[in-house]
Amino acid sequence: MAAQHRYLIIAEGAFGPESSKTANSAIRYLPERIVGVLDSQAPGRTSQEVLGFGGAIPVVCSLEEGFALEPTAILIGIAPAGGQLPAEWRGWLLAAIDRGLHVWSGLHTFIGDDPEIAARAQAKGVTITDARRPPKSLTVSNGLATEVDAFVVLSVGSDCNVGKMTALLQLIRGLEQRGLRTGFAATGQTGMLIAGRGLAVDAVVADFVGGATEQLVLQAATDADVVLVEGQGSLIHPGYSGVTLGLLHGACPRAMILCHQASREFIGDYSFTRPAWVRIPPLPELVRIYEDAARPVYPSQVIGIALNTYDLSDAAAKAALAVAQHETGLPTTDPVRFDPAPLVDAVVRARARVAQPPA
Amino acid sequence: MAAQHRYLIIAEGAFGPESSKTANSAIRYLPERIVGVLDSQAPGRTSQEVLGFGGAIPVVCSLEEGFALEPTAILIGIAPAGGQLPAEWRGWLLAAIDRGLHVWSGLHTFIGDDPEIAARAQAKGVTITDARRPPKSLTVSNGLATEVDAFVVLSVGSDCNVGKMTALLQLIRGLEQRGLRTGFAATGQTGMLIAGRGLAVDAVVADFVGGATEQLVLQAATDADVVLVEGQGSLIHPGYSGVTLGLLHGACPRAMILCHQASREFIGDYSFTRPAWVRIPPLPELVRIYEDAARPVYPSQVIGIALNTYDLSDAAAKAALAVAQHETGLPTTDPVRFDPAPLVDAVVRARARVAQPPA
Repeated sequence: MAAQHRYLIIAEGAFGPESSKTANSAIRYLPERIVGVLDSQAPGRTSQEVLGFGGAIPVVCSLEEGFALEPTAILIGIAPAGGQLPAEWRGWLLAAIDRGLHVWSGLHTFIGDDPEIAARAQAKGVTITDARRPPKSLTVSNGLATEVDAFVVLSVGSDCNVGKMTALLQLIRGLEQRGLRTGFAATGQTGMLIAGRGLAVDAVVADFVGGATEQLVLQAATDADVVLVEGQGSLIHPGYSGVTLGLLHGACPRAMILCHQASREFIGDYSFTRPAWVRIPPLPELVRIYEDAARPVYPSQVIGIALNTYDLSDAAAKAALAVAQHETGLPTTDPVRFDPAPLVDAVVRARARVAQPPA
Repeated sequence: MAAQHRYLIIAEGAFGPESSKTANSAIRYLPERIVGVLDSQAPGRTSQEVLGFGGAIPVVCSLEEGFALEPTAILIGIAPAGGQLPAEWRGWLLAAIDRGLHVWSGLHTFIGDDPEIAARAQAKGVTITDARRPPKSLTVSNGLATEVDAFVVLSVGSDCNVGKMTALLQLIRGLEQRGLRTGFAATGQTGMLIAGRGLAVDAVVADFVGGATEQLVLQAATDADVVLVEGQGSLIHPGYSGVTLGLLHGACPRAMILCHQASREFIGDYSFTRPAWVRIPPLPELVRIYEDAARPVYPSQVIGIALNTYDLSDAAAKAALAVAQHETGLPTTDPVRFDPAPLVDAVVRARARVAQPPA
């Protein structure tokens, strides 16, 4: 899909700081390409009012209102409850296709597999991009990521949805200001939307998670001094830990940045079905878990902490940063809320250590 | 596929103790259903001569010779180099189908996706079973395996192909002699062939490894006192570690049996591309790695060591067992070569500890 698209985001009933991850990241990193957000539950507001960023990007309450903003494509910005495409959304997509709009989706259910939508899109000559559809011809990882000249940094986390992608994206400007060329290896649909390339590693056949990640690292390492690999899940997440470990062993990072939401106590995906099942251990324990897991394949160190404090007051956020820094002894910041420089510096220093081994 | 099939195994050019895993396990556990093995490189020999077990099951050098043994189905017993179906094998399968034989395959390449073979099979009314084809409607794991009454035991390993499936199958008779009903949760194609049910967990979409395993545990726990879950890969295998961790967190075992080939020093899959990459750590370190990985989700203990000594002399095998037992302090045996009783006892004792918590 051409990079120039102007998107109308569908976030029906769910546009908010915690409930519309893809929508929010698109607004944060591609604001000039977002014409509006469809959510009939929050009409008349702006992105700034709902999320705290995104300026005047409007929330509209109907598709017709959205069309008036002259989008060239629909971006599905939330996952519908239950995973299936709601009937109302199908109607919207068909109506949008009829107007010649393209469709970008990161849903688990592939839009392009819906016969009616696919036929309509073909008839109208528009593209349906299912970002999570795995490419053909993946392989098992072969350790090729250990051979790239670029310094490979992976974001890892205490849980899903704590800011692993965002933490790395926030470092790019600072690294480039230091004269370091960066390559971003997007491993999830939202990262792919922003980077314009990548692969949803949790959607590939399990044997190929490492191999898929390896491909992404090799691709991102071309013309880069630092490769930033978007992590997924968590080694302590009962459902997704396998993806996390496969990704870690495929990426073979030199360094890791540990991401955590300061207010989170338990793995969040089980908050309804099995609350208080998996307690998130203290950060120093998480550092040890990740370094231990990396060691047998390719040793790696956690070099900094990215703490997500969006739901805390300024005072509480600063206190949380101080505690985390004290506990781990590592550079710590909330790279969205505060200056990402401590993590930029940590990457620069860690890279310099590798480039100049002690005499 | 009906359980009564009499199989002719294709193991062309690779029938041997180390090179034909599926063939060998079929011969070990289903000998009465194997009529012969096709390997034109080893004609005139018997399974006993080639593998050291399997008695008079003959090796034949042509398909015609195999047909004379009156099989009702073809079993693909090795993975062809490169993963694609060789032209010669396609010819064999078509010829077998023409004679009304069914086909069972655990290959990554699905036989049933070959249009010519599929059409021929349909025309002849025979079944093609692609054991690795994932079922529809898998989910993310939900911790349901923690709720079964049965005592769940998972085999884990230092590497692939060290005997994780075999170690558990060798315990079944002993457990049943103790009056314990067993359920075997097959997670790979060979285990599925033997158990008659299961699911290749490394063939599912990465997000669903844990959920698929959970389903298998629930299924195997019906009418069982002990569920034996076949492990896959290794937490230190660069390519497959993600499958291993996803499986561990999906199965939520109470106990683990650690499997290792005594003579193996490095992860074997990289012996050509990257020899001596990942050194297998000492067994006590492996015990720690598995127990640490399990702990955040559901604590589990390694309760015994299954040491594969097939390539050692009797004296060397006994010495290796003594060393492993001394190093780990755990019951240790080669459950194929020697009496599996030490591991049977370890399972019985561990189950009793859970059933009767200290007063």
